[in-house]
Amino acid sequence: MTMPSGEQWDRETFIARLQEAGEGKGKNGHSLLADIEAGSATPAAVKRWIAGRYYYQTLLPRQDALITANCPVRDVRRAWVERIMEHDGRRADQGGIGAWLQLGEAAGVTRRDLEEHRNLPQAARETVDEQLELVERSSWQAAIAATLVDLVAPDLLREPATAFEKHYSWIEKAGLGYFKSRAVQAARHAAQALDFTVRYCDTPSLQREAVRVLERKCDLLFAMLDAVEGRGGEQGRPEARPAAARA
Amino acid sequence: MTMPSGEQWDRETFIARLQEAGEGKGKNGHSLLADIEAGSATPAAVKRWIAGRYYYQTLLPRQDALITANCPVRDVRRAWVERIMEHDGRRADQGGIGAWLQLGEAAGVTRRDLEEHRNLPQAARETVDEQLELVERSSWQAAIAATLVDLVAPDLLREPATAFEKHYSWIEKAGLGYFKSRAVQAARHAAQALDFTVRYCDTPSLQREAVRVLERKCDLLFAMLDAVEGRGGEQGRPEARPAAARA
Repeated sequence: MTMPSGEQWDRETFIARLQEAGEGKGKNGHSLLADIEAGSATPAAVKRWIAGRYYYQTLLPRQDALITANCPVRDVRRAWVERIMEHDGRRADQGGIGAWLQLGEAAGVTRRDLEEHRNLPQAARETVDEQLELVERSSWQAAIAATLVDLVAPDLLREPATAFEKHYSWIEKAGLGYFKSRAVQAARHAAQALDFTVRYCDTPSLQREAVRVLERKCDLLFAMLDAVEGRGGEQGRPEARPAAARA
Repeated sequence: MTMPSGEQWDRETFIARLQEAGEGKGKNGHSLLADIEAGSATPAAVKRWIAGRYYYQTLLPRQDALITANCPVRDVRRAWVERIMEHDGRRADQGGIGAWLQLGEAAGVTRRDLEEHRNLPQAARETVDEQLELVERSSWQAAIAATLVDLVAPDLLREPATAFEKHYSWIEKAGLGYFKSRAVQAARHAAQALDFTVRYCDTPSLQREAVRVLERKCDLLFAMLDAVEGRGGEQGRPEARPAAARA
């Protein structure tokens, strides 16, 4: 697996390297999500997670629009623009953002609190903003690779659908629609993004950038959960891991 | 009409100022389009215009995706994402880019020549690239205002639909679909963009930025036509007009 850094990886090696990008500290998910999953999270912790993840949701359409803007390939844009619409929906509470607002309300977090990002720790906001900046300064190919979190570190984006029904009876079931639509979407999105990543990261330099950007994305998602859990502050913004740490 | 620069303009004044932004040298359109309209353009000149405008078409979805990416207002994104899809279409030759490829073929410019941007003068390419950069470095509100060319300097984007049918019998009529779909779109787009511009350019500074960016956009479109006509080179890239020039 150790190759001179200038060589083009074949498909298998490239995918293995992308997998390794998920093997940072987020490999086993995050304690906040594990607590929520196990039913041991306090209502306050669940609500903080909902608020933090809401801010993340609001930046997803902008992230995907940025990838679309940077991409000169019409067929990729055609696919990617669908994601923007899936986040924003066409009207009212359609789309991922609307569904998340409903989830919040079902858990007793008002729409206004969510929309005004109250209870969003500054450190959490920064880790999300940094994810958008990461896309902004990356090639569109590597930015697409960075959406492969579900594939390489699925526990970082784990959605506690079953746990919500099972353990948190104070959350109204009517608000859980988000999880249902997401499960179908996620598999389709991952397959598509992997296809584009392998096809368009077609130089040694783009392949390495893809691995690096995906790794950073995983670190930032982990840091976001840290910040939401209250471990924010300076530790909340991870330094880029040195390449040696994953050799 | 002369106001201290720090004041908020009322709706009427703001719209008047936007109109004035179209009153640069492009006020009366451009000689290339006038020639095409009059039926006096050579086939070579018509083909050069088709090639230049094709490059412009290919950047429109990316421009609109950039506006979408920069915009935090969900309802505006929902509207703007429609434009991305109208340019790119869903499949095959749907959308504005596809229709333009068909127009090219009807005029004897091969798809390959268009897609590889042969016969695109470097100066024309630069004026189009600069339009994308203009959007990139402007606020999303001012970038939306810059789409109001059809409203303030319509002759700069004049589409010689009737002239094509009347004067250029060597262009196959089947290729003129672009003009038909555009006519409907253009009026709807202008009304929507004006509405957003007035509503969201809601500070003195955003209003002035909107006027400045729209003015620059008009200048760049004029310079693009200059370059396509063969007046490119250094003169093809206009310096920003000093504010005094339009006082």
